[in-house]
Amino acid sequence: MWQLYQFPLCPFSRKLRLLMGEKNIAYELVREHPWEGRDEFWHLNPAGRTPVLHDAGRGVSLSDSQAICEFLEETVERNPMINGSALQRAEIRRLVALFDENLYADVSGPLLHERMKKRLVLRQPPDSRVLREAMKNAHAHLDYIDWLVDTRQWLAGPTLGLADLACAAQLSVADYLGGIDWKGHEQTRHWYSVMKSRPSFRPLLSEKMEGLPPPPHYALVDA
Amino acid sequence: MWQLYQFPLCPFSRKLRLLMGEKNIAYELVREHPWEGRDEFWHLNPAGRTPVLHDAGRGVSLSDSQAICEFLEETVERNPMINGSALQRAEIRRLVALFDENLYADVSGPLLHERMKKRLVLRQPPDSRVLREAMKNAHAHLDYIDWLVDTRQWLAGPTLGLADLACAAQLSVADYLGGIDWKGHEQTRHWYSVMKSRPSFRPLLSEKMEGLPPPPHYALVDA
Ligand SMILES: N[C@@H](CCC(=O)N[C@@H](CS)C(=O)NCC(=O)O)C(=O)O
Ligand SMILES: N[C@@H](CCC(=O)N[C@@H](CS)C(=O)NCC(=O)O)C(=O)O
Repeated sequence: MWQLYQFPLCPFSRKLRLLMGEKNIAYELVREHPWEGRDEFWHLNPAGRTPVLHDAGRGVSLSDSQAICEFLEETVERNPMINGSALQRAEIRRLVALFDENLYADVSGPLLHERMKKRLVLRQPPDSRVLREAMKNAHAHLDYIDWLVDTRQWLAGPTLGLADLACAAQLSVADYLGGIDWKGHEQTRHWYSVMKSRPSFRPLLSEKMEGLPPPPHYALVDA
Repeated sequence: MWQLYQFPLCPFSRKLRLLMGEKNIAYELVREHPWEGRDEFWHLNPAGRTPVLHDAGRGVSLSDSQAICEFLEETVERNPMINGSALQRAEIRRLVALFDENLYADVSGPLLHERMKKRLVLRQPPDSRVLREAMKNAHAHLDYIDWLVDTRQWLAGPTLGLADLACAAQLSVADYLGGIDWKGHEQTRHWYSVMKSRPSFRPLLSEKMEGLPPPPHYALVDA
């Protein structure tokens, strides 16, 4: 059985959990706080980052969420999420990188640092200038996602795919941390409520990071 | 014909050029400085980053170096660089992410900022504290690469693959910027000189960023 090393607010672990949910792949969760730098964890992943997907029985340890997603796509054929022609697959991967790298660097990453890590680990107050900047950046990203929703059925094309999962993963973490102002982004809000209502999303919405409650609207599908 | 938008010291463009070289895919270079934020360039890639691979004739514009590498692997079968079993492919992609993300964030990215961008764009002196830190980080990465070279034929396994190209791309940029002290890293130094002697590497070694000459050993295959 796969064991997934993660913590509830790691957006890359969320992307992977959504993929495993959509593909019906069983796994159990192992709680890991990468900032604690446990030796055993560095041994599993020399980059010291979550997520890690581990199968002790087979002695297999995979890391980097995108490498793991590609592996699962190659080995579990049902419900493909990097699908279509080579050009469509390139479009899915372009958007996954945009969300994993830019949306994370501009929005969910700074929110995690200011509102989770400073509160739970560093015991420091958040920097309100950084928070304001992240929430401003969120609007620019949401404008682009609105445009994707307006022009396509799903973010990368005609079918639900990994780009939708990657985007929902980052946005859900930012939303948990109170960093998303949905006003003026009806298209993305609607797409996101469809995503939240998928069975693959349910387990994520009910989990909490101790000492850090989400805002009331976070887990509501129609909010 | 493919047009590759890049500048000589972009490590992600270098990774892609090495792949296209190994696969014998023809392209022409278009010089792009992403920090100038040209409207036409943002139109090709809403993330505003190099590399972008563009085919005006077919109206195709691809971005994110890894998405482009996956596309070329899927569409051009000769000389596969993401090769082997699903597990071997996962190992190649894990290492590509380690080099593209961690080696870049710890070493080549800070060197590019301090020694290229500050000199050519911001007209500021480099921060010697940041440079020292990057060069210290380089040793830790080189230790890990030494270990890979010691235990495998190529970085990710028995055949030359995208992990080798990604690593050589980042290291070559750091080396151009005088950030690599090869002493004590004989294994990596030897592997890198093998990489430098490949025909795919030649065009990179002879190119220069104006106003920023590389150190004398940079283009020597046996240095
Ligand atoms: N590209 C990597 C990113 C992984 C990542 O950045 N994970 C964060 C947690 S969200 C981490 O472990 N950071 C190290 C730390 O917090 O010490 C992936 O997709 O797996
Ligand atoms: N993950 C991206 C990273 C691309 C990237 O960061 N490119 C840099 C140049 S090396 C860039 O364009 N940065 C934006 C800027 O300098 O304004 C890829 O692999 O293509």
